[in-house]
Amino acid sequence: MARFIALQAHDVRFPTSRTLDGSDAMNPDPDYSAAYLRLITDAGNGHEGHGFVFTIGRGNDVQVAALRALESQVLGRDVDETLADLGGLWRELVHDSQLRWLGPEKGIMHMAIGAVINALWDLRAKREGKPLWQLLASLSPEQIVDLVDFRYLTDALTRDEALEILRAAQPGRAEREARLLAEGYPAYTTTPGWLGYDDAKLARLCREAIADGFTQIKLKVGNDLDEDKRRLGIAREVCGPDIRIAVDANQRWDVADAIEWMAALRPFGIAWVEEPTSPDDVLGHAAIAKAVAPIPVATGEHVANRVLFKQFLQAGGLSVLQVDATRVAGVNENIAILLLAAKFGVRVCPHAGGVGLCEAVQHLSMFDYVAVSGTAENRMIEFVDHLHEHFVTPVEVRGGRYHAPKAPGAGTEMLAESIAEYSHG
Amino acid sequence: MARFIALQAHDVRFPTSRTLDGSDAMNPDPDYSAAYLRLITDAGNGHEGHGFVFTIGRGNDVQVAALRALESQVLGRDVDETLADLGGLWRELVHDSQLRWLGPEKGIMHMAIGAVINALWDLRAKREGKPLWQLLASLSPEQIVDLVDFRYLTDALTRDEALEILRAAQPGRAEREARLLAEGYPAYTTTPGWLGYDDAKLARLCREAIADGFTQIKLKVGNDLDEDKRRLGIAREVCGPDIRIAVDANQRWDVADAIEWMAALRPFGIAWVEEPTSPDDVLGHAAIAKAVAPIPVATGEHVANRVLFKQFLQAGGLSVLQVDATRVAGVNENIAILLLAAKFGVRVCPHAGGVGLCEAVQHLSMFDYVAVSGTAENRMIEFVDHLHEHFVTPVEVRGGRYHAPKAPGAGTEMLAESIAEYSHG
Repeated sequence: MARFIALQAHDVRFPTSRTLDGSDAMNPDPDYSAAYLRLITDAGNGHEGHGFVFTIGRGNDVQVAALRALESQVLGRDVDETLADLGGLWRELVHDSQLRWLGPEKGIMHMAIGAVINALWDLRAKREGKPLWQLLASLSPEQIVDLVDFRYLTDALTRDEALEILRAAQPGRAEREARLLAEGYPAYTTTPGWLGYDDAKLARLCREAIADGFTQIKLKVGNDLDEDKRRLGIAREVCGPDIRIAVDANQRWDVADAIEWMAALRPFGIAWVEEPTSPDDVLGHAAIAKAVAPIPVATGEHVANRVLFKQFLQAGGLSVLQVDATRVAGVNENIAILLLAAKFGVRVCPHAGGVGLCEAVQHLSMFDYVAVSGTAENRMIEFVDHLHEHFVTPVEVRGGRYHAPKAPGAGTEMLAESIAEYSHG
Repeated sequence: MARFIALQAHDVRFPTSRTLDGSDAMNPDPDYSAAYLRLITDAGNGHEGHGFVFTIGRGNDVQVAALRALESQVLGRDVDETLADLGGLWRELVHDSQLRWLGPEKGIMHMAIGAVINALWDLRAKREGKPLWQLLASLSPEQIVDLVDFRYLTDALTRDEALEILRAAQPGRAEREARLLAEGYPAYTTTPGWLGYDDAKLARLCREAIADGFTQIKLKVGNDLDEDKRRLGIAREVCGPDIRIAVDANQRWDVADAIEWMAALRPFGIAWVEEPTSPDDVLGHAAIAKAVAPIPVATGEHVANRVLFKQFLQAGGLSVLQVDATRVAGVNENIAILLLAAKFGVRVCPHAGGVGLCEAVQHLSMFDYVAVSGTAENRMIEFVDHLHEHFVTPVEVRGGRYHAPKAPGAGTEMLAESIAEYSHG
């Protein structure tokens, strides 16, 4: 009988602020970082579970402290039993009353629980010899709903309704899995759009994006309206009318600002407006969505949990739902969110970029395609071409599409050399 | 010129789980704790700023790590300049983009910023020789709005509207201050109502509450409906028809559960239902409020920030707003929330209890009475008779009323012996 014998947490930081990669209207100088977690067992099979929380620098040490605070909840557990009931463990960790007080279900402690859950899924997928998306897509509807905590969701989605959604998607599973393995999943790129880049670099990166096969790019906006118009003008000219251009304000605006700003940007042809205001402001997003229609409103990377996503869907506050692999409490909560999106018929276009987010979140979209929504139509996973070289199984994005990963695991394992080289403090 | 020269953080935990003080439907065994902060200057005047985050045990060490992470933002600053512009410092800390990523504006990092802000107010009040409520109530409307960040609020409350509210309350300030000093502020007690107490203790504590002059008590509910009916029956029999009895579910229910449960408890005469469901569920609270009317819905102790409070008010999700001294980013954010409540005409009845929350939050209600809402009608501050002996200036609650504190400071200073004796690990 194997047990968990060690939880190792690492404060890994990449000095991305030097090149202004990742610069936007709210985050002028991020240092992409990971509060990184390794779960080690005494099984003697070489398998470890790896997970992380993505942060942008200062405070990554506090996130690491939160990972370490979960050690006593993990060590000594039976590995087989734990991996066989990750829904049970999710409830136990998220509803631990003392830890819950620190959120509840939001912020540093909630994300730390997410990293533990994700690391356990990584371990389970490695042991079963499957990439995570394929492992999840091989579960029965009953097994999938057992992973989900429906507490606080039942006014919008019950267990029975979730089962119906999953059962309705069963017939085409094998065909979609084969198609995914053959064709991959659509991507869009944010690489050209960071605010810190000059015009020549913006234009060059737009051209490269098109040459690489992308059909949507995304530009950061929100600092200065005239600047935004100028940069959108450059991008639209380089891209022509057929490439979709989304804009991302990174929460810069109040409700009235967002409405006014988007009225001015509308002529450039906007695929969606992302994070127009506070990610807690469900009603504000609903007001913005109504005013800027038919431009879709997108949000999610800072939406703290399934309860807030539920309300965004109930209120019509978003029409592009951007799950994030490390903001909520891991794979299980993201399955709840995918089911909510399916219930409300809203498309899911994950947030990625940062460090390791592309590697992790692709599994969720692919699982969704095979076993939940059953469609990839008008859906895309964000892609940013940074820091993939630090991962054991980096994403493969070619021709504007994520190739379906085939390596066992959740994609979350960083190279040991990278962890060592970029460990902080 | 004085500077901040040290930030000391202490992990203080009281073993309250041994007696089941504080036990409710979601928190069966809390150990009331404080991530406790001392800010030390080289002014040589003996004044320190003290603040804390209240937690219930495990994870208090992570909260302490978050306090320490703010050291570099505080040390070396000019004390006079900092205290003269606490609105500026609030913006600087809350909008630090790297720290903000860890919330944003919620959870461990946000509460840590709140403790720093509260400690600075404690220091400022000590230097000015006033209790915090009186210091705040002596500021001009312009000075008060300068303390508030209106970002994300302007669709509900603008700076100009806040100024109007404060100016309207100016005429009666002196009279209300005199009345507060003479008569105090109304309190209600939760002491009888913890779930872990047996029937005899419940009845005895109800009798004592009435003898002590309280006109409202609060009972914890939500674990078992039959039990709740039985306990409410005992309380109502002991209290008679004139004492108000509120119930508190501590987030135990989904929306439909809350509605059903409250229909069953309605015959006992319910003063309000508190935390019926997730504190993030604005729309859920609005649905519950509509269904259980005229029973008022109360929430706030776990509401993460002013943006969520704004929406609760916009949606009609609460009619009793329960500010908490250490959940949001300190005094400044609580002033924003008091102004929002005044704008919407909703009464404020703060959450207290725990450790030090009564000492801290009374200042907010008293400031509100003198300078914001201008009324204490139908308003009460929660009182729980635990752990006050550990504070330098413990609350004085007599005859069912909080006596207005006269000692300089924010009430947040714990006895050095208590810090030493209950320091953890």
